[in-house]
Formats: sequence, structure tokens, C-alpha cells
Amino acid sequence: MKSLLLFLSLFLILSLPLQTFADSPLPSWNNGTSKQNIINFVTAVSDRSSSDYVVPSKRIAVFDNDGTLWSEQPAYFQLFFAMDRVKALATDHPEWKTSQPFQAVLEGDMKTLIDSGKKGLIKLLMATHAGMTTDEFEDIVKNWVQTARHPTLNKPYTELVFKPMLELLDYLRANDFKTFIVSGGGIEFMRPWAEEVYGIPPEQVIGSSIATRFELRDGKAILIREAKLDFIDDKEGKPVGINLHIGRRPIFAFGNSDGDLQMLQWTTLGAPGKRFAGIVHHTDKNREFAYDRESHIGRLDKALGEAETHGWTVVDMKKEWKVIYPQ
Amino acid sequence: MKSLLLFLSLFLILSLPLQTFADSPLPSWNNGTSKQNIINFVTAVSDRSSSDYVVPSKRIAVFDNDGTLWSEQPAYFQLFFAMDRVKALATDHPEWKTSQPFQAVLEGDMKTLIDSGKKGLIKLLMATHAGMTTDEFEDIVKNWVQTARHPTLNKPYTELVFKPMLELLDYLRANDFKTFIVSGGGIEFMRPWAEEVYGIPPEQVIGSSIATRFELRDGKAILIREAKLDFIDDKEGKPVGINLHIGRRPIFAFGNSDGDLQMLQWTTLGAPGKRFAGIVHHTDKNREFAYDRESHIGRLDKALGEAETHGWTVVDMKKEWKVIYPQ
Repeated sequence: MKSLLLFLSLFLILSLPLQTFADSPLPSWNNGTSKQNIINFVTAVSDRSSSDYVVPSKRIAVFDNDGTLWSEQPAYFQLFFAMDRVKALATDHPEWKTSQPFQAVLEGDMKTLIDSGKKGLIKLLMATHAGMTTDEFEDIVKNWVQTARHPTLNKPYTELVFKPMLELLDYLRANDFKTFIVSGGGIEFMRPWAEEVYGIPPEQVIGSSIATRFELRDGKAILIREAKLDFIDDKEGKPVGINLHIGRRPIFAFGNSDGDLQMLQWTTLGAPGKRFAGIVHHTDKNREFAYDRESHIGRLDKALGEAETHGWTVVDMKKEWKVIYPQ
Repeated sequence: MKSLLLFLSLFLILSLPLQTFADSPLPSWNNGTSKQNIINFVTAVSDRSSSDYVVPSKRIAVFDNDGTLWSEQPAYFQLFFAMDRVKALATDHPEWKTSQPFQAVLEGDMKTLIDSGKKGLIKLLMATHAGMTTDEFEDIVKNWVQTARHPTLNKPYTELVFKPMLELLDYLRANDFKTFIVSGGGIEFMRPWAEEVYGIPPEQVIGSSIATRFELRDGKAILIREAKLDFIDDKEGKPVGINLHIGRRPIFAFGNSDGDLQMLQWTTLGAPGKRFAGIVHHTDKNREFAYDRESHIGRLDKALGEAETHGWTVVDMKKEWKVIYPQ
């Protein structure tokens, strides 16, 4: 009997951590409006006796990636991936030495690359993201993530994720939320590392995509990545992508730019029940980067105005986050 | 102390059912090859000491819907939904009395309706599935599911699901599989009832879709369903849909027709590790319907040949299922 009691006590102790965790969530957030808004919201929808209670299956939380979960300056990290791929593949493509935007990439000429515009970027994307199987592309991304380093911060990109946001993801999941990424970035660019880095499995990653084509090759079933845009998961595309992949309206959304505006609207405007919209405002030029209304990458202008109108939570990184990165 | 002990004992007793359940899974399946194949597979991939062990996060199971989880004769149930919608909307569309395929629907002339072919069916689909918001369409489907009855079996459609397959879904989930629907049917036609009927939440339903468009209307965020095909989740489309929505290759797949062939190939051919492919063979003309190689709906021809080649599990409904429907 004694040993049974001991076993049962141990069992109970082992089930305590979640409770303890719930008592002091978001340790990297300073006590302030944003932290309080988040905790108030999560507490209200998780409390069975509250009129704001939401059943766990409907606790859907969506997060933009670039600029919301990890940094996006001086350019989207996926652009650095594409540039690294051009360098890696250059020996097989001697013609790239004299054709744009490849020449600009090989010469490290960022100005010419940016000036090549949407057309040039799509050319770069297709040359580096298509023409292989989905399995092959996954390996390429995994390998890059393990070896590549940010050009100025000199760290692996997956260490340039925001610690306060990792805590927020954990806090939501500890309260039975299902967390999704809804990014303008490539869906297959994020999936190979999102589970390890964010705890978000591939089936909860939504993003932009190129077409794929099924084929049997030597008796093996493969999917070929084709040089053809399929879906752009940005702006008006975000609610469309959310509906296609999730099929219910989120009750919690976090973004950082005008590309997230429609996702924040879809989450909060015109559906019943308590809802939360948050915006990461990049205000910390010393510890990260400072930019908003005038930035070419991650412009935050319209959404900042709407945040004020609707009372959305705007996180001042500099004031509200004790740390930016995990280390 | 005594009451604590009582509480703890109760707690332990409450955690027993899963274990008990695991001892006698699939009660509606006769002991036979299919049941044994399923149990052997699930046991092998769930056993940590087995060389076939698969971590829970990779235990992805995909199921076709029409003919695999519920019946599909004398025609796909979604067609009856579309026909019922035409009847419900007919007073607003006097022109339908003299234009096909609507006239055929209103006159109950199935032959003319079928003869209208793909073009006619798409016309019917667009007239009944587009032009409203996603929220409105969800309500329409929910209401139909609650009131409509199968033309010959005279039961609600959601009662025409296969009890042995419901048990299989439960059995897989009890062994940490994540279960998905991958259907040629409309994604938004299945989501409103799939969670209640199959225990599969909207975010785990993959299907064919029409385009949607984001809009703010009177300050409310809505998605309008447009009369434009977006994706056909059938044949070669199934692996594409699986990759887009799930982002990993399933290890377990069940279908019933040639429309599922590529999904079964994608699951089993050319990826490492133990894999399972199953086919529901409709052999029971007394309790359900009997059809395969010659059927217009749910034709099973090529996939039956491949099942033999690759040693896939073919379920003989008549011999292997004790019951077909829940009641």
C-alpha cells in the first residue's frame, strides 16, 4: 500500500508542471499592456465559467512568420536561401554570369537584384525552388538551415527567432490552442524546420506555393516541383489560405506588417465571440531592427492605423521584450 | 487520506478504457486477413522496440470519403445535395424550368442529368455551391445534413457511414495516428459534419475546392465563394493535395476506387519504412451495393490490379464486415 501511495504521489507530482507554468507565463515579456492583454484573453477563453469560453477544438491561433516569429532584415531570409542556391548551382549554369538577376547575385550586387523587381525575384525563385522532387527540396532546405548564417548577425537563421514569441506559442498550446503559421514565405521552405524550431508540425504550416506534379519514376511515387506559381499567401490571400487549410476562423492572430492586415481582419471583424489580434512592432534598432511605415521589407502602415481603430495589441519590442533571441 | 486514496483510485480507473479498448480493436470486423493486416501494421509501427517503429508525429493516415467512409450509390451524396439545392432555389430561378441540367433535376430525370456530363455537373455545382459566403454555405450544408434522406435507403446520409471504418479511425487515433480525409468531394461540403461523424476536425479535411475571395462588407470580414474551380482532389490531385495540406507522406491510406490509386501509390511506393494501403471492395449487394470494374460511380479497376501486384489489403465487405452501418 505504501509503495502504491508513493507511486500515486509521484504521478500527481508529474502532472503539476503545466499548472506551475500557467502561473507565470511569458517570462521574457515585461509586465505591460501586451502581456496583460494576451493573458487576459487566454484566461477568458479557457475559463469554463466565463461567457467568453471557447471549446479547445475552436482555439485556433495563427502567426505570420517573417518579422513575427523570426527577423526579416535586411531582407527575407528565404531570399538569402535563394541567393545561396544560385551560388551553389552556378557551376552548372555558366550563363548566369551574364544574365540577371543571377549575375547580381553572383557579384553580391544587392541593388541590381532588388531593382530586378518582382519579375527578377520570380525568376530567381523558380531557378532555385523548382525542378526537383519535394523530398529533394526538403533535404536542400534542411542542409541550408544547418549551415547558413545571417550576413550581418552571423548566426544560424533558426537562432534569429523571437524568444518571447516562442514562449507565446508554448503558452497558447499549454492552454489547448492549436498553433499555425500563415506566412507569405514558401510553405515547403518553412516545413523542414518549423517543427523543431517552433513546435509547429508541417500540417500546421500555411504559405505560398508553387505547383507540384505527381509522377511514377522507376516504380517510385514522386512529386515534382514545377516552375509555376500556385498560391500567394499574402494580404487577401491569407484569409483564403486559412480557410482552405484550417476551415475555421481563428480566434487569435499575430502579424507584423500590412501583409497581415487581412488575416487580422478575418480573425477579429464580424465573427462572434472574443478575439485577439496582435502586431509585433519593430522598434529596437539596437537589439534587432527598427522599421515600420517606410520600410520596403515588412512595411507596417495601414495595419498600424487599423490597430488603433480596433484596439488591437501592438507590441513595442524595445519596451516590452526583455530579450529578443533565445541566446 | 482515505478520500484522497479513493480519488486517486478513481483517477486510475478512468485512465483504463483506452488500454481495454486496445485489447480488442475493430469489433465489427470478422477475424480475417484485412483485420489482421491492419492490427499487425499498427502494432509494428507503434512498438518502440520494433525496427518498424514510427514516431507519433509521423503516423499520418489518409482516407478517401465517398465509398470508403460512407456509401456513394446510386450517386455521390454531394450530387443529391446539389439537386436538393436546385429544388430549394427554383422559385428564384424560373428560367431553370427550361434550361439543363436544372430542368432534369426539377423533373427528377436522372438520365438527362447524367447525360449532361461534366459540363452539366459543373454548371449544377456552381449554381448551388457558389455565390454565398463561406459561413452561409456552412449553414446550408449543416441544415441539409440534418434534414435530407437517402433516396432509396431513406436514412440521413450521415448514418450511411461504415461502422467498421469508424472503428478503424478510432483505433488509429488511439494509437497516436492523425487521421485525415482526402476526398474528391468538396472540402467545404464535408467539414461541417466530419468532426461530429468521423471525429476528424476541419483542418484535417482535404478535398476539391472552388475559389474564394476576401472582402470587407459593412465592416465585417467575409469570404465569398466564387463560381470558379480551384482544385480537383482526385487521382493525381490526391498526392498534390496531401502534400499541400499535410506536408508529409502518409504511412497509412484507405480508398475504394481508381480515384484513390495515386494516393495509395504516394503512400506506399518509394518511401522508406513500413506502409499500409487498403481498399474497400464493395461486394455486398444485400447490405450495401456491389460494384467494381464496370461502375460509373467509384470504379475500381486499375487499383484492384495494383493491389494484387503490391500486396495491398483488399477488404471484402460482404465477408469481412459484421455490420455495414452503425444502426
